Amino acid sequence: MIAVDWGSTHLRLYRMDADGTLRERRRSDQGTLASGGRFGAVLAAEMAGWDDAHILLCGMVGARGGWHEMPYLECPAGLPELARHMQRLHPPGFEGRELWFVPGLRDAAEAVPDVMRGEETQLATLLEVLPGGVHQVCLPGTHSKWVTIRDGRVQRIRTAMTGELYALLRKHSILGALMPDDDSRFDAYAFDAGLRRSVDPGGLLHHLFGVRTTGLSGQFEGAALASYLSGLLVGHELHACGLTDDGPRPAQVHLIGSARLLGVYARALTTLDVGVQRHPEDLAARGLHLLWARRMQAAGQRAPAPPA
Amino acid sequence: MIAVDWGSTHLRLYRMDADGTLRERRRSDQGTLASGGRFGAVLAAEMAGWDDAHILLCGMVGARGGWHEMPYLECPAGLPELARHMQRLHPPGFEGRELWFVPGLRDAAEAVPDVMRGEETQLATLLEVLPGGVHQVCLPGTHSKWVTIRDGRVQRIRTAMTGELYALLRKHSILGALMPDDDSRFDAYAFDAGLRRSVDPGGLLHHLFGVRTTGLSGQFEGAALASYLSGLLVGHELHACGLTDDGPRPAQVHLIGSARLLGVYARALTTLDVGVQRHPEDLAARGLHLLWARRMQAAGQRAPAPPA
Repeated sequence: MIAVDWGSTHLRLYRMDADGTLRERRRSDQGTLASGGRFGAVLAAEMAGWDDAHILLCGMVGARGGWHEMPYLECPAGLPELARHMQRLHPPGFEGRELWFVPGLRDAAEAVPDVMRGEETQLATLLEVLPGGVHQVCLPGTHSKWVTIRDGRVQRIRTAMTGELYALLRKHSILGALMPDDDSRFDAYAFDAGLRRSVDPGGLLHHLFGVRTTGLSGQFEGAALASYLSGLLVGHELHACGLTDDGPRPAQVHLIGSARLLGVYARALTTLDVGVQRHPEDLAARGLHLLWARRMQAAGQRAPAPPA
Repeated sequence: MIAVDWGSTHLRLYRMDADGTLRERRRSDQGTLASGGRFGAVLAAEMAGWDDAHILLCGMVGARGGWHEMPYLECPAGLPELARHMQRLHPPGFEGRELWFVPGLRDAAEAVPDVMRGEETQLATLLEVLPGGVHQVCLPGTHSKWVTIRDGRVQRIRTAMTGELYALLRKHSILGALMPDDDSRFDAYAFDAGLRRSVDPGGLLHHLFGVRTTGLSGQFEGAALASYLSGLLVGHELHACGLTDDGPRPAQVHLIGSARLLGVYARALTTLDVGVQRHPEDLAARGLHLLWARRMQAAGQRAPAPPA
């Protein structure tokens, strides 16, 4: 089978055996935004030489404006619901093959609903292996997802626009003018100062202006100021999740993402005495395999045996 | 005398009689950022035909990178301190004339200090006329200033980056992509919905993502969605100022700014049962005249009599 994690800015392909063994992987920058609506042609080109019959897709490729809009599944939802609501397509150019799209999830518990597309598949492995009870998962990024899992099902979704706001402020605001373009140097001391500042009164809009006075006063300069801004935003994200309260907090948060981002969030959570368990970004491949195996099983089909 | 309100993006000039009567006014887009360091030449050109000896300047023209960096005056500070710490310059090209620069204010009560440049001059008239006690003033804008006046002196300054963040999100974020470029249509119903949302749990970073789901779900579209975003940001600004708390709140807030912005903030405050008193944006001219008269008086000079 072929697992395809197709987001708005990335395309990751994995060729896997029926038993889940990863055979080959490919990466491309042909995200749904860059592929200009030519989804079939882009996928065929990126999969060149892979002839497996079953192709599973997750991510923004199933959003409005993507290849095939998949309705959201309402929370709480677990592996059985996700597998059951996958949809099969036979688009032209893929004769004799099956394309399976995974639905996104929607949480309507708040006045304004929250959603995810793609992350539900990264979560699938955790849904399978975590014991009963409540677990907190965070997938940091452009739009950080905070997910509550209860007894194997996604119960709550809360998204924070942390990464996008950080990038906007770096590139286009008066704050960015005080920082270097290069974003690679992390200043732990400044990051921690930003974290501490985030719990002060005054709110994020006020704290952001303080980044400017902090820079102008010479307390932090350049790269350190960028780390201070990062600490401030991550701190506000954790604060809104109740992780800085005196009340009950999760003992541990599962983190899914790139090593660099996980390092930043792990530092912040450790500062708050919250344990972390890190998981790699490419959980999506394992999730897609898991959903495929479930669906085949449910359909009364046996997953085809690996080639002799 | 000539009063010059010179900010980073605007230049406003007022020619006034010694008794404060406004004779003539001019506006230009030659803000300090646009004037390319040629401050003297720009000012001479904009003042062409005005030969008054005394020129008073406030705003970013006195910032680092401006014409002449003025040190900040520490809060609490009132009219006497502002007048006393003005500095006189005799730059080339202005022979026989005096240029007076007004200092900015700095509030170091918080872990991160807050500052203003220019707004202190807009406040000068209020410092003169308000009775003793505590008064709350708000100058909404790119960087909204919340100022506490106590017994004729500026006691506290709190800046919120509301306007800049609104513009950034409109122009550069995924939220802006759902809104028209034109920003002129105000949707009161959507604005109020954003205001209400701002007091929900979850924090600003989470509420911002909700603007997207609100747009995608079709609840608000285009211009209405921009008003929703505006209500959300203004709501968070008021919330951080304690105006949405159950505890004691000011009965009235003085608003200084453009008619359009004041309309927006007045609507939000009225919703919260807080009274408003509006003041026009060009209070700076009256403030500069007031500071000039004070300084002349303190120097033992009488303000020169108006020409016969």
